[in-house]
Amino acid sequence: MNWANSISAAELASKLQAECIGDSSIQLTGINEIHCVKNGDVTFCDNSKYIKKALASAASCVLVNERVEAPSGKVLLLMKKPFSAFTKLSQELRGSFETNEMVSSSSEIGDGTVIMPGAFVGKNVQIGSNSFIHPNVTIYDGCFIGNNVIIHAGTVIGADAFYYQRNEGYNKLRSCGTVRIENDVEIGANCTIDRGVTSETVIGAGTKIDNLVQIGHDTTIGRNCLFASQVGIAGVVTVEDDVILWGQVGVQKDLTIGKGAVVLGQSGLAKSLKGGITYFGSPVREAREKMKELALVKQLPSIIEKLRR
Amino acid sequence: MNWANSISAAELASKLQAECIGDSSIQLTGINEIHCVKNGDVTFCDNSKYIKKALASAASCVLVNERVEAPSGKVLLLMKKPFSAFTKLSQELRGSFETNEMVSSSSEIGDGTVIMPGAFVGKNVQIGSNSFIHPNVTIYDGCFIGNNVIIHAGTVIGADAFYYQRNEGYNKLRSCGTVRIENDVEIGANCTIDRGVTSETVIGAGTKIDNLVQIGHDTTIGRNCLFASQVGIAGVVTVEDDVILWGQVGVQKDLTIGKGAVVLGQSGLAKSLKGGITYFGSPVREAREKMKELALVKQLPSIIEKLRR
Amino acid sequence: MNWANSISAAELASKLQAECIGDSSIQLTGINEIHCVKNGDVTFCDNSKYIKKALASAASCVLVNERVEAPSGKVLLLMKKPFSAFTKLSQELRGSFETNEMVSSSSEIGDGTVIMPGAFVGKNVQIGSNSFIHPNVTIYDGCFIGNNVIIHAGTVIGADAFYYQRNEGYNKLRSCGTVRIENDVEIGANCTIDRGVTSETVIGAGTKIDNLVQIGHDTTIGRNCLFASQVGIAGVVTVEDDVILWGQVGVQKDLTIGKGAVVLGQSGLAKSLKGGITYFGSPVREAREKMKELALVKQLPSIIEKLRR
Repeated sequence: MNWANSISAAELASKLQAECIGDSSIQLTGINEIHCVKNGDVTFCDNSKYIKKALASAASCVLVNERVEAPSGKVLLLMKKPFSAFTKLSQELRGSFETNEMVSSSSEIGDGTVIMPGAFVGKNVQIGSNSFIHPNVTIYDGCFIGNNVIIHAGTVIGADAFYYQRNEGYNKLRSCGTVRIENDVEIGANCTIDRGVTSETVIGAGTKIDNLVQIGHDTTIGRNCLFASQVGIAGVVTVEDDVILWGQVGVQKDLTIGKGAVVLGQSGLAKSLKGGITYFGSPVREAREKMKELALVKQLPSIIEKLRR
Repeated sequence: MNWANSISAAELASKLQAECIGDSSIQLTGINEIHCVKNGDVTFCDNSKYIKKALASAASCVLVNERVEAPSGKVLLLMKKPFSAFTKLSQELRGSFETNEMVSSSSEIGDGTVIMPGAFVGKNVQIGSNSFIHPNVTIYDGCFIGNNVIIHAGTVIGADAFYYQRNEGYNKLRSCGTVRIENDVEIGANCTIDRGVTSETVIGAGTKIDNLVQIGHDTTIGRNCLFASQVGIAGVVTVEDDVILWGQVGVQKDLTIGKGAVVLGQSGLAKSLKGGITYFGSPVREAREKMKELALVKQLPSIIEKLRR
Repeated sequence: MNWANSISAAELASKLQAECIGDSSIQLTGINEIHCVKNGDVTFCDNSKYIKKALASAASCVLVNERVEAPSGKVLLLMKKPFSAFTKLSQELRGSFETNEMVSSSSEIGDGTVIMPGAFVGKNVQIGSNSFIHPNVTIYDGCFIGNNVIIHAGTVIGADAFYYQRNEGYNKLRSCGTVRIENDVEIGANCTIDRGVTSETVIGAGTKIDNLVQIGHDTTIGRNCLFASQVGIAGVVTVEDDVILWGQVGVQKDLTIGKGAVVLGQSGLAKSLKGGITYFGSPVREAREKMKELALVKQLPSIIEKLRR
């Protein structure tokens, strides 16, 4: 997420009561999480394990809690609690989403789009033309919905990322990212599609999603995918075009599913999958191999009997 | 779904700009998908693989895209895009469901039935007596709910079938079927029960359904079934009476589950099951066999050790 | 649940048209299910299998359908249908929850708490301060929500327990218990948390729950737990503090999960788990053992080949 106006590292350091390490004149344009930073961005690192990655990233500024040298062209802001400071910046960008209107007057809704009774449309939501938002849908502030999109009843678009820092308890990062649903997408009833932490969760054009499906924060779904009911996809997953996930498939965070992959029902993904192949099982394997294994296990009693003889 | 008035095949051919093969005077009464056609129905076939089945069905008229001979008593309408034409007919039957009312004035609601605030009741919905519709439930147009039915908050009855024709992208068939919920049914919170494509999705009398359960289009559930939370049933499934499905069970499309079957939690069904038996596993097997197999696999290290010696 | 005023066993016997066995002067203070009865409580038993347990429990009064001797200090009420009588008492305590208000005027809502449009808040609900209830949430009558609690859109708090007595069909017990959500809890979108039958379902302070999660009746979740999306927990489960359940984990009823246990995605629990250990599989095992087993099964073809030679 970008700010309306860029600010200097010196200004940000003063605001966050931090010490500036490196070039304090560097101009900063917004904030982003480490997995999607670009030049001009502020990010944070509060764990020594990840400090090298943070310093090597495209971010122009890193909030840190240990004294390290700033790489050329970067500035570090040294402080006690980088996560809290980053959360504060995120919350400022997000703003308050309190409102008394079911359809916010600040939302933009295109020609031919129908918003049914009971649907909630938050602040600064944009919806294209000829889309249909069924009753009791909730679209949180700032989300973007394209043209010819159908969203069935009870679905929630843009709830907060499930993203916490573990301490004694869990500290919440109030996500300031958003959701972008491209043209010709259909989403079933009672689905949940979370907003990005600082970036976007994307549903690609033409993708069709059945009921009760979960899509986590910052996940990117390609074009013309098909997800059956009760599929669950965690955060920061990349699903390429033309992927089919059958019912109740679960996908862990940070994975990639290649173009045209097909995953059979109830499979569980703990690693990335190449495209163009059919998979099955929890943990998932190529379906052909998994089927052979299942057949073998079924024959085990007679195999063991033969070997004994 | 039937039309208000029957029309001749000749009239339909003219409307759809199709060539009539066979007796153009045959009277047509409505449309249906191939799995539930009856005499008088129009259905469609756009895949050579299924043409024999379509011609042998009870349908009186088939929309086709290849020149074949009409069986006696049937009429074929030859056109380029049978799916599109069928979709057009379905959409006409469904009509517009845009409305500004939370409870449509065209709905019929029986004595003693309570509709709580935030619940949406669409056009031409019928609800019997002494039923209770909790807050934020959505009942799409045309659905039928019996007497003494309880529907908990957030549940969605009658959303569109998850049904597309694959092309370059996916073409949607806007389903014109409906949902029928019989007497004494209780449905938990945030469930989704899709409407039939052209026919009915049925929940039989006395059946009890827990929260977050998915029931697909054109599926028929028998009487006095019990489904625990997060069960997912695909489209065109038949579940006979007295079936118990425990939590998170998944059922693929087009299957039948026999009377009195019990399926243990997280099982996955890819084939039909006989009644009166307890099942477990993904893929599912008889529970006794599956338990034996699990025990055997657990003992494998020691079995292999013995065989080695 | 307690009554406003205690009554004598004689009065209750007269009200329920039952025969009093034992000391009819015993004062009764409320009703409870067998798993959570305390001194002064009325409970019921309609199955000979459980009569000993009922008589040995802390309950002061048991509704029974067989003539047995009353233990010292207890009173029994003999009747034909203990379940129906208990249900009647529960329904009286629950009262009617019909209302025309989206936010009941009988609810108490603390300073700084925001109730968004489309959210329903039932009778006698209490919500603490600085909590945020997102659009289209439903909170049934009598539930208690603490301070700094966030509930995302579409979530349903306090729907009825999934609890029936099997007869020819299923008889419903209309649950009179409630839900208590402690301070600093966050609950995702489209979750369902059922009320207790006669007691409380509890979500402990600081616990964070992702989207589409199911928590059954009378279940107690400890402090600072983390449940990922689509987790399903049945009724009467105890989850101790600091437990992590990853996506789509299923937990059967009546189990206990020990402090600090971690259960990997899609696992299925049919027995209680000790704390401090990581688990995987359906049925669940210690993750290390399960991983070894999976590796062994994968190598089976080559192991069998070697043994054959």
